Amino acid sequence: MTGFSLSPQLQKDCFMLGRLGDSQLLLLNNALVPWFILVPHTDTTELFELDDETRLGLVRDSDTLAGFVKQTLGCDKINVASIGNVVSQLHMHVIGRRHNDFFWPGVVWGREEREAYSDEAVMAIVASLLANLDGRFVLSEQ
Amino acid sequence: MTGFSLSPQLQKDCFMLGRLGDSQLLLLNNALVPWFILVPHTDTTELFELDDETRLGLVRDSDTLAGFVKQTLGCDKINVASIGNVVSQLHMHVIGRRHNDFFWPGVVWGREEREAYSDEAVMAIVASLLANLDGRFVLSEQ
Repeated sequence: MTGFSLSPQLQKDCFMLGRLGDSQLLLLNNALVPWFILVPHTDTTELFELDDETRLGLVRDSDTLAGFVKQTLGCDKINVASIGNVVSQLHMHVIGRRHNDFFWPGVVWGREEREAYSDEAVMAIVASLLANLDGRFVLSEQ
Repeated sequence: MTGFSLSPQLQKDCFMLGRLGDSQLLLLNNALVPWFILVPHTDTTELFELDDETRLGLVRDSDTLAGFVKQTLGCDKINVASIGNVVSQLHMHVIGRRHNDFFWPGVVWGREEREAYSDEAVMAIVASLLANLDGRFVLSEQ
């Protein structure tokens, strides 16, 4: 692919935190659950059609992120999914779930309930990513 | 782990088709969408906590299955997810979606609508798996 641009819907819904490994790391602006989205740099829309390097890079990055969400943010279960029915740009959801969260035990997709983050809460998450991911996460340049 | 047993909920909801690579391959009894479930032989409940061999085997098997669902069954989009909020045994959903299916563009989880398969429809899917997956899919022994 030439260049990289993020889908307008993801830009609208998410904070652009930076880069984790080979993917852009987004945080959905919904403080009800810690809901991260990884967007690899590819025009391919299905996981199984990725080249091996991109596919395995995405596995590694999503596993790194899942470990952070479960262990550092203190969640009970991780939900991981690639859906793409509405936003076709390939993206991987990595969501931390707690036994007492708003949606538990249901899934989070298809629900409209949102609670905006405070700037401080987003900054605390970014600081924690920087402190815990040992250089694998870097801030956005823009 | 010692031995392998499938969760009672998955046994109740699914047809046990056989083994794909390193995982048991199930078909949810809901003819509204082609909804497969891979169950690796592990006691671990999170993808990121799997050992490398099991993790990469599951990626390979889910990608093989996704290719079959999209190309052979003729679907527009693949939904792949590991959720596990209700059934803790690690399992991977691989679901074929069509632009005119019952749930499109919504997700399939959390919906109650079901349509049971005919025996003939299940056998046709099994025959297609055997014909197209080049020995990687084998029937259940039981």
